[in-house]
Amino acid sequence: MANINASSSTSSQAEQIAQRAKKAFNVASRNVASGAKGDETRKAVLFRLKSLLEEAHTEVQKANALDVEKAKQAGLSPSLVSRLDLFSKPGKWQGMLDGISQVANLPNPLEQCTYAKRLAKPQSSEGEALDLYRITCPIGVLLCIFEARPEVIINIACLSIKSGNAAILKGGKESHQSAAVLSKILRRALEESQELPSDLIQTVETREDVNSLLRLDEYIDLIIPRGSNELVRNIQRSASIPVMGHADGLCSAYVHSDAEARSTIANLIDAKIDYPAACNAVETILVHKSHLTSQGLLTTVARALLEANVTIHLDEDCYKALDDNIRSSGNVKQAQTSDFDTEFLSLDVAIKSVDSLDDAIAHINEHGSHHTDVIFTAPTSSNNPSHNEAAATFVRSIDSANVYVNASTRFADGFRYGFGTEVGISTGKMHARGPVGLEGLVTYKYVLQGYAGRQVCADFSAAPDSAQGRSFAHEEIKKQYPPL
Amino acid sequence: MANINASSSTSSQAEQIAQRAKKAFNVASRNVASGAKGDETRKAVLFRLKSLLEEAHTEVQKANALDVEKAKQAGLSPSLVSRLDLFSKPGKWQGMLDGISQVANLPNPLEQCTYAKRLAKPQSSEGEALDLYRITCPIGVLLCIFEARPEVIINIACLSIKSGNAAILKGGKESHQSAAVLSKILRRALEESQELPSDLIQTVETREDVNSLLRLDEYIDLIIPRGSNELVRNIQRSASIPVMGHADGLCSAYVHSDAEARSTIANLIDAKIDYPAACNAVETILVHKSHLTSQGLLTTVARALLEANVTIHLDEDCYKALDDNIRSSGNVKQAQTSDFDTEFLSLDVAIKSVDSLDDAIAHINEHGSHHTDVIFTAPTSSNNPSHNEAAATFVRSIDSANVYVNASTRFADGFRYGFGTEVGISTGKMHARGPVGLEGLVTYKYVLQGYAGRQVCADFSAAPDSAQGRSFAHEEIKKQYPPL
Repeated sequence: MANINASSSTSSQAEQIAQRAKKAFNVASRNVASGAKGDETRKAVLFRLKSLLEEAHTEVQKANALDVEKAKQAGLSPSLVSRLDLFSKPGKWQGMLDGISQVANLPNPLEQCTYAKRLAKPQSSEGEALDLYRITCPIGVLLCIFEARPEVIINIACLSIKSGNAAILKGGKESHQSAAVLSKILRRALEESQELPSDLIQTVETREDVNSLLRLDEYIDLIIPRGSNELVRNIQRSASIPVMGHADGLCSAYVHSDAEARSTIANLIDAKIDYPAACNAVETILVHKSHLTSQGLLTTVARALLEANVTIHLDEDCYKALDDNIRSSGNVKQAQTSDFDTEFLSLDVAIKSVDSLDDAIAHINEHGSHHTDVIFTAPTSSNNPSHNEAAATFVRSIDSANVYVNASTRFADGFRYGFGTEVGISTGKMHARGPVGLEGLVTYKYVLQGYAGRQVCADFSAAPDSAQGRSFAHEEIKKQYPPL
Repeated sequence: MANINASSSTSSQAEQIAQRAKKAFNVASRNVASGAKGDETRKAVLFRLKSLLEEAHTEVQKANALDVEKAKQAGLSPSLVSRLDLFSKPGKWQGMLDGISQVANLPNPLEQCTYAKRLAKPQSSEGEALDLYRITCPIGVLLCIFEARPEVIINIACLSIKSGNAAILKGGKESHQSAAVLSKILRRALEESQELPSDLIQTVETREDVNSLLRLDEYIDLIIPRGSNELVRNIQRSASIPVMGHADGLCSAYVHSDAEARSTIANLIDAKIDYPAACNAVETILVHKSHLTSQGLLTTVARALLEANVTIHLDEDCYKALDDNIRSSGNVKQAQTSDFDTEFLSLDVAIKSVDSLDDAIAHINEHGSHHTDVIFTAPTSSNNPSHNEAAATFVRSIDSANVYVNASTRFADGFRYGFGTEVGISTGKMHARGPVGLEGLVTYKYVLQGYAGRQVCADFSAAPDSAQGRSFAHEEIKKQYPPL
């Protein structure tokens, strides 16, 4: 009995949260002035949030210290503790604050007209034209589920507010104390605005709440899980709501026959060692067979990786091509087949020889995770952008969210792309792909604007030369819908 | 034993179809020239398809007659038989053929650059800039499940070919004979082209095949079901692949206090009677209470609907407001509460009085299906587009794919919107909303273009004034990626 009560009370609690979110979304859509004025309202809330966070520096620091302390006592991994810690790494707290003003200052993502057509011209002195507009609008209520890093609460809240959505946020339980303080400050910023409902951003703490929310498709429009493949798959399986998954990355680099040695090495090393635990770190290197000579590029790459303390897992051909001097290093291993399907997330990389560009493309499309893949090939100049054929074929054929030419895979990130911050990096292909910023958090509606007079479908079925007959014009008009 | 074998052979047959589709997609992405040249290839296949269909007119007609005959013998409903029949309704066959050239002639939806930023400027005489482009690309393999109308096979195949996708099509079993001939011709058009793989469009016939395909997320990227809410929900529940649902429409019209009588009547009648079985037909009319006088607009609306042979289901206030003369008609009923949640798909409409614009908005957002909703209000002029406040609030607040001002809801359709034809009308909010044409069948990839020299993330973490230090520029550049 106790269990049943607990469960039904949790379920009704989750439902109340979801109802409040939907209501807040509807109120905001109805009441917050739109166009430039609405954007000013949202911007003001974000700047107020920034000030409140600056004022609460000590309070957040104390709460965060409790989380860090608890995580250390629980013996959590140093990398997790470092992700939890908002203050030890220089610039992290300030970066979060800067992100708020960056998002606030981005162009208004709402009510942008992305399609405009005059469907039909006026038919007579009495009649009027009929115009179709497609304008961007918020998605509705987002349910965001993410891991331990407490600053993600602020990142996602900022993107949600700026894009006119309501959000329900669930962070990792390790960041409980920090999240509680940050949520309180978020709520205060919304309350003080008196224009945006304070329920626009809510946080939930228990997994039970989340499980109930996953099926409330009446109130929730989109689930955004950010974490391991397993987390994303589990949510996809249990949810009756669309899921925009942000999962792992198995990124590959292909070194083509005409790659330029110096920049390839620099970019490859960065792709591997800049932050090996990140989803955009390189895990597989494919080397064109022409580089498998004793003085070839494979040898140079292998040396550079070993110097950077990377363990290299080589397929048979690559292993044979290296001299004994290199092979005797403790960090040189013969690759297992499974290494080419492994996201190491560590200072390890699998290296394989391929016979051709086509083999490289086939390997990446089959074994990669469609996240970020790069070709190293003869460089071109930004003064006269063009492709060599290999780069063009690679970009066209690789079925990934981010496809790079001669650059480190580590650039796949919303901040680096100029989005201010990101919700995550979408590994799905639908709606939003790659780093997800404001544009990924809006949808659109088609607005058909009749003016005076009849705007009747049947007239278009009548003979065009009859009294009532009209025909479609589909004429381009200015992409500007009158401000709402 | 027999059953197990049958099931595993079906499953492996489905898997083979899916594998062939993915392979065809990869081959086309790799080999078909891109940019204008690739578009010319796709266009040529579509025009060849049109000629082949014209040549096969008699063959298709014979097959279609068999389907129609069988449906009649089986006692299927006249509306279903009419949907099956490609030739009896004048212009239907020709309309299908015209749709092919219209789609063929639309602008190339692929490799359009929709975002372009110079991430960083060259850092020294030796260095080079780093540019980010977002270009459109096909989604991959589509699984399209639709109802009886055989021309949908050609509509969807055209949109898939033009947008560079592979497609697996499953139509209703009632159109079996027609579908077989149309598929054969589709395959011939692809084979003759010698540039596009003939497996790019495949058809499957059994529900067992479809059930197996729903979980093959390794090969299939998107499922597009088009049919009843129940069909869409069932597929959403069983699939492990994203679903773009095209389901039913419960469309509402709101007659505001300042609506203009003559055009409102014309547009409302069209919205109800032009094609009552369509998803974009109006099912609920909300009338502002100011119209509930004996000579008010409600009376005029009711008379016009009754003249058009529509049965009206009135709430208590509306019923009371009409005089006995009208109420004595056999087509006047007192509404049940459930009528306002019913998609009649017949010559019936539910009518309700509301106290205000806000009440109308709240009713539509709660009871509607977020498909197409319209406000009738004081008209403006297309010579000087602007809104009255009610129209602006309605457009901003209604959470639907299509939101109309002073026009019939029946315009919600891909052909009428200028898309050539449509895959369906998406009732989801993610990716594509409303009528889905070519734009709804593409996704995008981010292409990061390094040129000569290092393009290393770590340089952006270094102090900007140090030897290696760089900072992000995020400068607008021309939205034009060099042709692939």
